[in-house]
Amino acid sequence: MKTMAPGIEDLRAAGARIRPHAVVTPLLESWELSARTGGRVLVKAEVLQRTGSFKFRGALNRMLQLTAEERARGVVAYSSGNHAQAVALAARVCGTAAVIVMPADAPRVKVEKTRAHGAEIVHYDRYREDRELIGQRLATERRLTLVPPYEDPRIIAGQGTAGLEIARQAAEAAAALDALLVPCSGGGLTAGCAIAMEAESPSTAIYAVEPQGFDDTARSLRAGRRVSNEPGGRSLCDSLLSGTPGELTFSINQPRLAGGLVVSEAEALAAMAFAFRELKIVVEPGGAVALAAVLAGRLDCRGKTVAVLCSGGNVDAEVFRQALEAPVS
Amino acid sequence: MKTMAPGIEDLRAAGARIRPHAVVTPLLESWELSARTGGRVLVKAEVLQRTGSFKFRGALNRMLQLTAEERARGVVAYSSGNHAQAVALAARVCGTAAVIVMPADAPRVKVEKTRAHGAEIVHYDRYREDRELIGQRLATERRLTLVPPYEDPRIIAGQGTAGLEIARQAAEAAAALDALLVPCSGGGLTAGCAIAMEAESPSTAIYAVEPQGFDDTARSLRAGRRVSNEPGGRSLCDSLLSGTPGELTFSINQPRLAGGLVVSEAEALAAMAFAFRELKIVVEPGGAVALAAVLAGRLDCRGKTVAVLCSGGNVDAEVFRQALEAPVS
Repeated sequence: MKTMAPGIEDLRAAGARIRPHAVVTPLLESWELSARTGGRVLVKAEVLQRTGSFKFRGALNRMLQLTAEERARGVVAYSSGNHAQAVALAARVCGTAAVIVMPADAPRVKVEKTRAHGAEIVHYDRYREDRELIGQRLATERRLTLVPPYEDPRIIAGQGTAGLEIARQAAEAAAALDALLVPCSGGGLTAGCAIAMEAESPSTAIYAVEPQGFDDTARSLRAGRRVSNEPGGRSLCDSLLSGTPGELTFSINQPRLAGGLVVSEAEALAAMAFAFRELKIVVEPGGAVALAAVLAGRLDCRGKTVAVLCSGGNVDAEVFRQALEAPVS
Repeated sequence: MKTMAPGIEDLRAAGARIRPHAVVTPLLESWELSARTGGRVLVKAEVLQRTGSFKFRGALNRMLQLTAEERARGVVAYSSGNHAQAVALAARVCGTAAVIVMPADAPRVKVEKTRAHGAEIVHYDRYREDRELIGQRLATERRLTLVPPYEDPRIIAGQGTAGLEIARQAAEAAAALDALLVPCSGGGLTAGCAIAMEAESPSTAIYAVEPQGFDDTARSLRAGRRVSNEPGGRSLCDSLLSGTPGELTFSINQPRLAGGLVVSEAEALAAMAFAFRELKIVVEPGGAVALAAVLAGRLDCRGKTVAVLCSGGNVDAEVFRQALEAPVS
C-alpha cells in the first residue's frame, strides 16, 4: 500500500477545512449510563452530524480537496448508505455531481436521502456483485473521481476529526478517558480516532466494536493479519458489513488499538432502546454497537472514564419500532 | 402578585449557577427543515438536557438557592412529569429530599425516572383533585419548600438560560433570528426566553406554541387578560396541560410576545416523526409543538431565520411508535 497514513496535522487541517460545513457534535453525559456501568461514560452523538452520521466528515474533507477539473467531472462512491448520503451532500456543498453505487437492500431512508441530495443512484446486489468493481468501472468510464469509504488518508483524516473533538470535549468536561469505543466496519473512523487520541490523549485505550458475524477487525487484531468474514452473512447493523479490514486502516489500527469487542444484534437493539429512553437520540443498529458493548459489559467500566461513539442514526422506522419493542434491560 | 419578574442579570446569574450541573444543549441546524419551510430553521435540542427536558434548569436554579435549613427539611413539587424529574434530580444534586405530587396517569417513563432519582411520589387524580392544594398542604404539614413549576422568578430565570444559550448560539452561527417559537404551558420557559431575547436579540419575535384545547396563552394574549381552558380536556401533549397562564408568567409574556400559535395532536406527532427522521432526536408530543408549528406552516418561515425549541423528550415507547406509524408528511 503506497498510500500513507495521515498524521495528526492532517487531522487538524481537516478539522479547519470542514468546520464551516460540519457540526461539532456534542459529547453527552448520561448519569443513568454511568450508574448502569459503574463508571463515567460519555457519548459522542455523531448521529447529530449532517446526513446523520460521521461519514460526512471524511467525504467532505476529501471532496474539498478536489481539483477544479475533478470537480467539473464529478465523483463516484459505493456505500451501504451513510457514506452515500455523505458524498451526496458533500457534492452539493462542493458544487459537483455524485454517482452512488448502493446495495439494492439498503435501508429505504438512506436511499431516499441520498437521492434527495441530488445524487444519481446505481443499485447492485450485495450478495452477488462486487461494489468496488462497479465503482471503479464507473470511475474509469465516466472519468469520475472515486471517493472510497475508508481507504484514503483524506477520508481517515476527516473522520478522525470526531476523535479530535472527543479529546477536546472530554478535557473540557474534566474527563480523563481510560477508553474510547468506536463502531468499526472498514476501520476508517477507528483509525482516525486512534490517530487523534494517540496525539491528544495517549493513555486512552481504543477499542473497535463490531457486530457478531462481522468481527473481521477483532479477529484480525488477534491473528496479527487481515482476515475476512464468512461471505453471505446478514445483520441489522447494515452500516458495519464490510468483509475485511482495509489495508491502510488496519496498518493504522493494528499498532494503536487495545482490541476488538463484539456485540449481538439483540444487544445493539437494546442499546438503541437505551439511547431512546435515556439519551434522547436516535441511533441506528450499527451506530449503537459501541454503546451496546458498555451496556452489555464487554468492557468493564467500573471506576473508569469511558467514551463511546454513536456513529449514525439513519434507521428505518420499522427497525426502530422493533428496538423499542424489546424488553427494557 | 408581589413576586417580581426576573431581569436579564438574574438569568445571567442563573446561567453561572447551573453551569457545573446542566448541559449546554446544542442548537441544531437541519437543512431538510430549512428546505421544507423555505427559511433557515434552527432547533434548540433541550431534549438533551439532564432529565430530558428544560425543567432541570429552573428547578436547579431555585434549589441551589435553598437555605441550609430549607435543604435539611426538603422540597415538594407538583408536576405532570418533567418538572418532577427535574426537582428529583436537582434534589440529589443539592443534597436534599424531594416529595413529588404527580397525576396518576402521568407517562410511565416520567414516574419511573422520578422515583429512580430517589424522590417520594404522591399520586393524585388529574381530573378531580387540585395538585396545587395537595402540594401546599404537604409543604405546610411537613415544612417542605414548595418548588413551583413556573410561578417563581428563580424558576423563570433558570428556564430562561435556554434562551440565553439560543441567543449566543444563533450569533455564533451567524443567524439573526427573526422569530423564536417556544412550547408553552404555564409560560415559565416562554417568559424566561422572552426576557433573554429582549436583552440579547430584541428584534426576535417570540411566539408561544400550544396544543389544541390547551391554548390558554394564545387566547389570553388575544383577550388581553388571563383566560382558562375548558376543564376535562385530554391531549397526548401531557407536558402542556396547565389550565391558565401564570399570573407572573403572563405579566412577563403579555408585553413581550408576538402571539400564540396552536397545533393539533396529529401535527405534534408528525413533528416527532420528522425529528426522528431528520434531526435524530427523541421529542415528546408537548416538546414537539414549536417544531410542529413551523412544519405545519402556522408561521410563514419563507426567507426568515427562525429558532424552535424542542423542550422535552420523555415519551413512552408506545406513543413514540404511534408517531412513527403516521404517514410521512
